[in-house]
Amino acid sequence: MPSWLIDGLGTTDALADVFSDASLVRGMLAFETALAAAEAMNGLIPRRAAESIAAVAAQRAIDATAVARDARESGTIAIPFVKALTDQVGEVDAESAQFVHWGATSQDVVDTAMVLALVQARAVLAADHERLVAALRVLSDRHARTVMLGRTLLQPAPPITFGLKAARWLAAAARGWNRANTAFKDAAALQFGGASGTLAALGPRSSEVARAVAYALQIENPPAPWHTDRDRLAALATALAVYTGTLGKIARDIALLMQHEVSEAAEPGGGSSTMPHKRNPASCAIAIAGATRMPGLAAAFLGAMTQEHERAAGGWHSEWPTLAAIVQGAGAVLRALAGALEHLEVFPDRMRDNIARTNGAIFAERVVMLALPRAGKAAARALVDAALERVRRDRVTLGAALASLPDATRLLTHDELRSIDVPEEYLGAAEEMRVALLESAT
Amino acid sequence: MPSWLIDGLGTTDALADVFSDASLVRGMLAFETALAAAEAMNGLIPRRAAESIAAVAAQRAIDATAVARDARESGTIAIPFVKALTDQVGEVDAESAQFVHWGATSQDVVDTAMVLALVQARAVLAADHERLVAALRVLSDRHARTVMLGRTLLQPAPPITFGLKAARWLAAAARGWNRANTAFKDAAALQFGGASGTLAALGPRSSEVARAVAYALQIENPPAPWHTDRDRLAALATALAVYTGTLGKIARDIALLMQHEVSEAAEPGGGSSTMPHKRNPASCAIAIAGATRMPGLAAAFLGAMTQEHERAAGGWHSEWPTLAAIVQGAGAVLRALAGALEHLEVFPDRMRDNIARTNGAIFAERVVMLALPRAGKAAARALVDAALERVRRDRVTLGAALASLPDATRLLTHDELRSIDVPEEYLGAAEEMRVALLESAT
Amino acid sequence: MPSWLIDGLGTTDALADVFSDASLVRGMLAFETALAAAEAMNGLIPRRAAESIAAVAAQRAIDATAVARDARESGTIAIPFVKALTDQVGEVDAESAQFVHWGATSQDVVDTAMVLALVQARAVLAADHERLVAALRVLSDRHARTVMLGRTLLQPAPPITFGLKAARWLAAAARGWNRANTAFKDAAALQFGGASGTLAALGPRSSEVARAVAYALQIENPPAPWHTDRDRLAALATALAVYTGTLGKIARDIALLMQHEVSEAAEPGGGSSTMPHKRNPASCAIAIAGATRMPGLAAAFLGAMTQEHERAAGGWHSEWPTLAAIVQGAGAVLRALAGALEHLEVFPDRMRDNIARTNGAIFAERVVMLALPRAGKAAARALVDAALERVRRDRVTLGAALASLPDATRLLTHDELRSIDVPEEYLGAAEEMRVALLESAT
Amino acid sequence: MPSWLIDGLGTTDALADVFSDASLVRGMLAFETALAAAEAMNGLIPRRAAESIAAVAAQRAIDATAVARDARESGTIAIPFVKALTDQVGEVDAESAQFVHWGATSQDVVDTAMVLALVQARAVLAADHERLVAALRVLSDRHARTVMLGRTLLQPAPPITFGLKAARWLAAAARGWNRANTAFKDAAALQFGGASGTLAALGPRSSEVARAVAYALQIENPPAPWHTDRDRLAALATALAVYTGTLGKIARDIALLMQHEVSEAAEPGGGSSTMPHKRNPASCAIAIAGATRMPGLAAAFLGAMTQEHERAAGGWHSEWPTLAAIVQGAGAVLRALAGALEHLEVFPDRMRDNIARTNGAIFAERVVMLALPRAGKAAARALVDAALERVRRDRVTLGAALASLPDATRLLTHDELRSIDVPEEYLGAAEEMRVALLESAT
Repeated sequence: MPSWLIDGLGTTDALADVFSDASLVRGMLAFETALAAAEAMNGLIPRRAAESIAAVAAQRAIDATAVARDARESGTIAIPFVKALTDQVGEVDAESAQFVHWGATSQDVVDTAMVLALVQARAVLAADHERLVAALRVLSDRHARTVMLGRTLLQPAPPITFGLKAARWLAAAARGWNRANTAFKDAAALQFGGASGTLAALGPRSSEVARAVAYALQIENPPAPWHTDRDRLAALATALAVYTGTLGKIARDIALLMQHEVSEAAEPGGGSSTMPHKRNPASCAIAIAGATRMPGLAAAFLGAMTQEHERAAGGWHSEWPTLAAIVQGAGAVLRALAGALEHLEVFPDRMRDNIARTNGAIFAERVVMLALPRAGKAAARALVDAALERVRRDRVTLGAALASLPDATRLLTHDELRSIDVPEEYLGAAEEMRVALLESAT
Repeated sequence: MPSWLIDGLGTTDALADVFSDASLVRGMLAFETALAAAEAMNGLIPRRAAESIAAVAAQRAIDATAVARDARESGTIAIPFVKALTDQVGEVDAESAQFVHWGATSQDVVDTAMVLALVQARAVLAADHERLVAALRVLSDRHARTVMLGRTLLQPAPPITFGLKAARWLAAAARGWNRANTAFKDAAALQFGGASGTLAALGPRSSEVARAVAYALQIENPPAPWHTDRDRLAALATALAVYTGTLGKIARDIALLMQHEVSEAAEPGGGSSTMPHKRNPASCAIAIAGATRMPGLAAAFLGAMTQEHERAAGGWHSEWPTLAAIVQGAGAVLRALAGALEHLEVFPDRMRDNIARTNGAIFAERVVMLALPRAGKAAARALVDAALERVRRDRVTLGAALASLPDATRLLTHDELRSIDVPEEYLGAAEEMRVALLESAT
Repeated sequence: MPSWLIDGLGTTDALADVFSDASLVRGMLAFETALAAAEAMNGLIPRRAAESIAAVAAQRAIDATAVARDARESGTIAIPFVKALTDQVGEVDAESAQFVHWGATSQDVVDTAMVLALVQARAVLAADHERLVAALRVLSDRHARTVMLGRTLLQPAPPITFGLKAARWLAAAARGWNRANTAFKDAAALQFGGASGTLAALGPRSSEVARAVAYALQIENPPAPWHTDRDRLAALATALAVYTGTLGKIARDIALLMQHEVSEAAEPGGGSSTMPHKRNPASCAIAIAGATRMPGLAAAFLGAMTQEHERAAGGWHSEWPTLAAIVQGAGAVLRALAGALEHLEVFPDRMRDNIARTNGAIFAERVVMLALPRAGKAAARALVDAALERVRRDRVTLGAALASLPDATRLLTHDELRSIDVPEEYLGAAEEMRVALLESAT
Repeated sequence: MPSWLIDGLGTTDALADVFSDASLVRGMLAFETALAAAEAMNGLIPRRAAESIAAVAAQRAIDATAVARDARESGTIAIPFVKALTDQVGEVDAESAQFVHWGATSQDVVDTAMVLALVQARAVLAADHERLVAALRVLSDRHARTVMLGRTLLQPAPPITFGLKAARWLAAAARGWNRANTAFKDAAALQFGGASGTLAALGPRSSEVARAVAYALQIENPPAPWHTDRDRLAALATALAVYTGTLGKIARDIALLMQHEVSEAAEPGGGSSTMPHKRNPASCAIAIAGATRMPGLAAAFLGAMTQEHERAAGGWHSEWPTLAAIVQGAGAVLRALAGALEHLEVFPDRMRDNIARTNGAIFAERVVMLALPRAGKAAARALVDAALERVRRDRVTLGAALASLPDATRLLTHDELRSIDVPEEYLGAAEEMRVALLESAT
């Protein structure tokens, strides 16, 4: 399956490294090394065996492709992996080879290697999330007073500020990352239970061994193995899907703002293979693409949760590609979007211009709110309708239309009339909310 | 769509009430009442308007079916709902009617009504979760020493205790509920932003109004409205999916244990429409059914997250049926499973018997672990192979087979030989883990 | 669960009827009636029993809510349904009551009732699909020459015609419906196998009974019951999801064209609860909402396919709400979109204007295609770059810019220069494709 | 992302080749070669250009990894791919290089390369499907008379034959493959439309060019390009998901039959990394794993269908990894299951024994069917209850229990009593259905 052309937009170089064969082999060898060391320390296997295993493991000479292929016989990569390691240790020291993987089960080494990859992935994502948040904070502060159309159902609505929009993006992204970050930490737990999850093969010192393995690998030692309890991983998979959903929303907003007819913002973008004039929202497309895959991938993970008894016949075996695709996909979305935001061009003039092109129709609500308490709903509506009619007919602004209507000059003050279609005068609590959102994200 | 025959197994009576038309109308009316009161308090509308609105709302005379049908014109139930309420208030007091829904937008009332339903749903689920956990704790304690087969890939593995199995179920369910409970609480936030989310229509006292509405409804007042930031709801939807995944795993385990050929446990179950002898795992089937739907429902919610700008054209409109199905589905699974566990029959004799029927083959690992350090891998394996061959051929136990092999009596002590296929002697840290798991869930 | 407010936008009145409790009860009674008649005809039960059952069934007096609630005991609505029917027949004639549901199993009556609902649903959808197709054909023919921007990645591209766009919509929708229609027909198959699917309880004439039941219900009599072979239903569920995906694409296109800044088309739309000026793409929102839910619902159905042995413990029980939501959801999308298309306003002037606003930049490709073979790539690109620079600087059209460049007048003919940014001159095979697409859909 | 350890169980060697970078590059080069040839044939580009492009393409020297990485700038692999090819042609002949990708757009080459991969994949899958079907036919014929328990909700039900079970598996698999095969053929359509899908850049001979390209690549030339009309691919993705759902059902059945407590069938299986005695259903686990991922992957594809206008901003970009995972996943499931079935061991003695262990309780229905018409329901039920009670108490068979009850000897004939728990006497239309199912699959 490995194809860069197919999967390249769904990962980053850093994350592709984390989930590469080499990295996973490293993780599996780290488990076996830590296990042997812990067992030697507790007198379960000879010290020399632990040393031999460590020495061979340090060479990282496992042929991942062969392991993967042989896994189709046994249903798990652990068996050919353990065999390969055992063979290699055996070449150095036949006796030590006997103690490779001592008392552990396939799932112990495979799950723990995945957990070790997740620990590394978290750090990669965290760094890109910081970039994203920093870029959004700059945009929000810089455009605290930049007015633009609110848009509901893709139609013009009363104005907001771009600063508020960016702050909403930021707060939602920050909430999303906080959930994902927590889930990453909860998932960083050793898998170690032996054949049935009781560590029976290790005798009375099994708990000490588990503790030592977790300590060596710098991950949590949970109260018990979690062979068929996949909730921590599912919580991570879905937290990343929720986070990515928010990032996808931001990317979609930008792609919409970048439409030629809107032209309120632009990401650096990419060219076209045939059209010299074009600047495509390439980073947004990558981000939206990643976000689009995520719900289905999350469902694929969740769908594998009903795992039978102490080890599943299939559910477990289905998880790896899904989880790796989710984590890498989230990272690809995040990186593309962070890049787009760091270099986002914002066009305040065009934003103001797009407000103006509604000729003030978006302020009709404001007129109603002012006039109704003074004259009743019927009169307020009649006034607004007359004004909007004039706006359409004469292509004047709502303010100008109202100024020409005697009812309006009677019902509204001079100041109100003058400011009725000034965006800055109808921003409500936008700035207060913006500040509160930024604060909520610290 | 409303059909009890179709949806009846996917909800409970209590939750069907929470998400009934009557309940949602109640929630929408509560929002409008609280809004009017807060606005009157802040001098934005006449006190009498608030009183009239409250009085009419108290009668709860909205025709939900008509509202739902009219919603197909506008795309939202809020518009016909507000119209109906306005008409009713207008019959009492025309002036007050003008101030219904003052300054609010459709999404404010609809999302807040959903949030109010979620608050009630949480309480329903919490009570059933307590039942589940209590039943599991009893089972785990009662069967702390009840030995049974571990089963991996549906094949026999070394023994565990049923107490450990129940404790793993409990700990995973408790983690799942904790996540869902947190998500419920995070989601209990007022939606209130007016047309574009800035509360501009309410003027300078908008924040006081928001605060008062949230206070009256006993939900959080977030830093800003969350019109297109659906992450809190998505986090809830997925947390419930993860929780339900765990419950589905438990139900599947029970259904597997209840197979006639296994017969280690039985839920009360239901009969068959044609077979007099049958006792079906009816509650497990309901629980598994609910768990089976959940990944797709979670994906449906996640797939709606990329909502455009300040209000989505479709994404938002897709959420209600999905979220209502998820919450009710989780409740149906939980209730069915809690019932099954409260009345679960456990058959320790059959558990022991099923161990015995492996003739000790599951203890072969143990022989290797003992013999290998003393004689090397080759000899240990040869011994085990010879013993297993004899087990198969002579239909004796592994212990008996070993006792008849000179190599075994040389390599293993008398005590070891005697106990080699005694389940209690090969439980490892089962009891220690059991206790730790129960503790982790308090 | 039944709530109109929650589910109202996800169905139509006609389909809500099809999947109502009353309709499903009717279907279940139709099965029992046909079964009894067929059995009497084949001498398996007394003729009088069949008559009594038919008479009682004709009264349709089953309390669906009670049946649904009792189903939580047995896991299936069939058991309380059969009990209720038996009781009612018993009140008329105790002996006949003994032969209710004779030799059938729960799944036989439940699945067949669902199939009967699907048969009705197909007819409802077919009628709305015809409306959709007719509206699209009119739009395509009327706008065969209406030029508009092609848009790729939401950026301007060389022109197309709206007629071509509508023809693409139509052809894709027609392909989608053809698949769904075929799947509906394949799924219209009797479920009838008795306890284990062998019809053993009916003795040697079981096949005749099956044939007669299918004939009476006007559905197919398959080679065998399909208790755990859900592929026909899954094929239907997914065909509807694919069809709805295409409809969602059309709705999204319209919503994008309806943006104020684009204003090239408008559906009738709905108003806003707070903004007097607004016209929302309400039908598109409903259509997009339905399309958004569909992938997850399809996944929910697919996720239930691995059904155990001769009847599933849960997989089967999960299907009804999913399938009913899919069929009704597809119908709601279809109806909303058909309505939008029947009343779609198209604004050719604005389409032309939006082309003009690119100042001809979208024709840069054309210049390259003409100039390159004559002067080489470097010269062609230089020419285009110079022209585009002038377009940007002087806000002239590409044609005007080229006319002012000596290189252009040297490389391009007078006719080419004159027509370089005339949309009609760069439509390629648009009309040929349009006609072929319409033909492909007949 | 490319990792064999992660993705290895989700593909086969043959399919990994089809979707390898090398294969995709080959497909993209085939498109560019065919395009240039067709354009030269139609006088659009110099013949020498076509020759140069063909010559360079034949060397297949594109660095896929570099292309994939550069694609992160432009959002598509086509741009760096075309650039690399252009550079290579340029080294041979600068003038020819100008005509690489003449008049085509990114999506043309990328989609067509995917289609070419699908054509190859179909052949791979078809061959394994034939193996599967052949193995099932042998099993069904061989075990036409092998009786076994029917099992509903995992509980014993009246008997079936293993031949019938295999025939049901076969018929469902055949229906699934037929749908997938049709979808493969529908999807084998050229993508070729240029910038906006009108082929405008190619002038009046564009249709001839399209026809010639399709002919050269041996795929269909559709009425128009299908840039944002993804229904054919979606139909393929979902058809494979439905097919795989059926295969997953078969694998689950086998895994359940292979439980130690059931032991009615066994696949060759694989060993355990720690337990010498174990034989795991490794192939079933691989098959179930693949089937488990599929619903979510199908949802991921469906979720991308609402693609904007003439080329999507993200929806399209999301498809490749999903589709490649679906096709390879289906192939992996199919191959694992075909292997399991070709070597499936069936244990008729154990099947009969498991029937016997119900002590005839599963024939209680039969007693009711016989006795009721003669004595009424009450008496029939009383008889069955008395007999079942005796079965439980005295651990005798139902036949023996009945023989000891005077009521039974009065109500049932001697022959009936003698055969009441003989499985062969209660198989109904099993053999008739088996034959009809096999016939339906030819």
